[in-house]
Amino acid sequence: MTSPPPFAPGSTLADVGEFGLVGSFTTRFPQGDHVYVGPGDDAAVLRTPRGHVVVSTDVLVEGRHFRREWADARSIGRKAAAANLSDVNAMGGRAHSLTVGLAAPADLPAQWLSDLADGIAEEAGLVGASIVGGDLTTGSEVVVAVTVLGTCDQAPVLRSGARPGDVVALAGRQGWAAAGLAVLTRGFRSPRALVEAFQRPEPPYDAGAAAAVAGATAMIDVSDGLLADLAHVAEASGVALDVRRDAFALAEPMRAVGAALGVDPLRFVLGGGDDHAIAATFAADATLPDGFTVIGTVAEPGEPGPVVTVDGAAYDGPRGWTHFATSS
Amino acid sequence: MTSPPPFAPGSTLADVGEFGLVGSFTTRFPQGDHVYVGPGDDAAVLRTPRGHVVVSTDVLVEGRHFRREWADARSIGRKAAAANLSDVNAMGGRAHSLTVGLAAPADLPAQWLSDLADGIAEEAGLVGASIVGGDLTTGSEVVVAVTVLGTCDQAPVLRSGARPGDVVALAGRQGWAAAGLAVLTRGFRSPRALVEAFQRPEPPYDAGAAAAVAGATAMIDVSDGLLADLAHVAEASGVALDVRRDAFALAEPMRAVGAALGVDPLRFVLGGGDDHAIAATFAADATLPDGFTVIGTVAEPGEPGPVVTVDGAAYDGPRGWTHFATSS
Repeated sequence: MTSPPPFAPGSTLADVGEFGLVGSFTTRFPQGDHVYVGPGDDAAVLRTPRGHVVVSTDVLVEGRHFRREWADARSIGRKAAAANLSDVNAMGGRAHSLTVGLAAPADLPAQWLSDLADGIAEEAGLVGASIVGGDLTTGSEVVVAVTVLGTCDQAPVLRSGARPGDVVALAGRQGWAAAGLAVLTRGFRSPRALVEAFQRPEPPYDAGAAAAVAGATAMIDVSDGLLADLAHVAEASGVALDVRRDAFALAEPMRAVGAALGVDPLRFVLGGGDDHAIAATFAADATLPDGFTVIGTVAEPGEPGPVVTVDGAAYDGPRGWTHFATSS
Repeated sequence: MTSPPPFAPGSTLADVGEFGLVGSFTTRFPQGDHVYVGPGDDAAVLRTPRGHVVVSTDVLVEGRHFRREWADARSIGRKAAAANLSDVNAMGGRAHSLTVGLAAPADLPAQWLSDLADGIAEEAGLVGASIVGGDLTTGSEVVVAVTVLGTCDQAPVLRSGARPGDVVALAGRQGWAAAGLAVLTRGFRSPRALVEAFQRPEPPYDAGAAAAVAGATAMIDVSDGLLADLAHVAEASGVALDVRRDAFALAEPMRAVGAALGVDPLRFVLGGGDDHAIAATFAADATLPDGFTVIGTVAEPGEPGPVVTVDGAAYDGPRGWTHFATSS
């Protein structure tokens, strides 16, 4: 992955061309044993066990999901892969393959795209997944469309299985990326830990399968915002979820940012999404896998139906991203 | 698929919102029996037989791969799906599932996106494939990233298996879409048959699996241009291919356009790609499946190595698209 690039320094996408750049990718990405045909033919072909194929697609657009001045290409690639790998995680599955669709301006440095691809491959490598194919074309802005394929060793855990009496539990950092974004949008670069959390999320990749084995009744990837995503679970399961403020231990940098920006740092925790934490519900007597902390409870829905409350009351802060309602 | 749209006439993507629009898609796309979890959870889950999963991604960008003034949204959707389904076809596989990643301007009519999605589903329906998931976000231009998954009943047919002594054969229309594009770029709308061929390719979806069963030694989807794609086969197989001009029967509209534009219509055939014909090589004594016509032969590579010739000589016309070298 650190072999020298096969194109001259300063080359743009237009200089190197689609075929040249794709050719440089395909020779250096490691391919797992399950890859029967890797990049370079009309399609990739994967050997798969009988069972379930888990598949998910995410699209990231420059200026909306990332900014080139806020993170280097490798970090953006890692983040794009993480968003997808996390979706398979949230089904209780394990990712094995990714395809990468890219549109980019013709004058974009070829090295930037190469670094982006390396970042995707690097993040995929954390779970042993391979980049098996893709497509590259010109466009007026950078668009990264990643599709991930994976397997489930057991039945997938859906959003719809939460039952009254269950507990709500969370694995992974939560709110760090949102706090990092708040820092960046105000033109700051520190606390470094939070900025890095935004630039490169570290999803708890073992949590999903572990939760499935431990009998999780429902599960979701926290990507829109904790309360927003729990609302998807409440809706799909037909239940009410209540989250406790005191369940969240606020790390020092979160407190520091809250004080510096004059914001209750719990807002980042309850409304943040980019960490790709895993939220799951379990029977009250289940033994939670390592890494999960109970943050709330599941009840019968009252009026006005399936909702998410905080300490038993409606929450008036931001619950997460509402796509298209935001300008960033 | 023809149920009334769940949003008011004139609504834009921003009015309806990502969730609203995606919600309208997910309830109306038919899901095959193999779909265990369809759209709406973190990922789709597909029941699959033990064996091979075939996967391919294509990215289409507005202004480069399609223009809204040249085709309606449904046709653009059909074309986007066709490009992907054809890749599985060219491996000898059968597609069963698609994911659709979309970026689109916030002021784009919701109906346009809905029609696009219907077009994708319609084309997928031709081969019994389902749209099982996707992602929708805003961007400054329309980008459609489709990923297709399929199965192979037999070993996939790669680009690398052509052997000296084989014949080269072609299934499907070839050159019609390129002729239609030539018509459109000059501001004309007829001959209608050619314009429609560009707007909605009709790939020979049964040809790939039939060729695989008949023992095809190499196979490729003609998407970059016939000679350009045959060059991929020559390169991957380490052979020389020769194509015969007289193997192509030029249909009347092709002759008419050639005469009207003062262009040898064979240029559309040899350089055109958007029809998604299937080119395959077979042993000389193989019985070709219905729909295939012999267009050339395979030989040992001479100097300067693996090449494609026309009637034994280098060809000086356009061989196909060179991405990034074109302005359209």
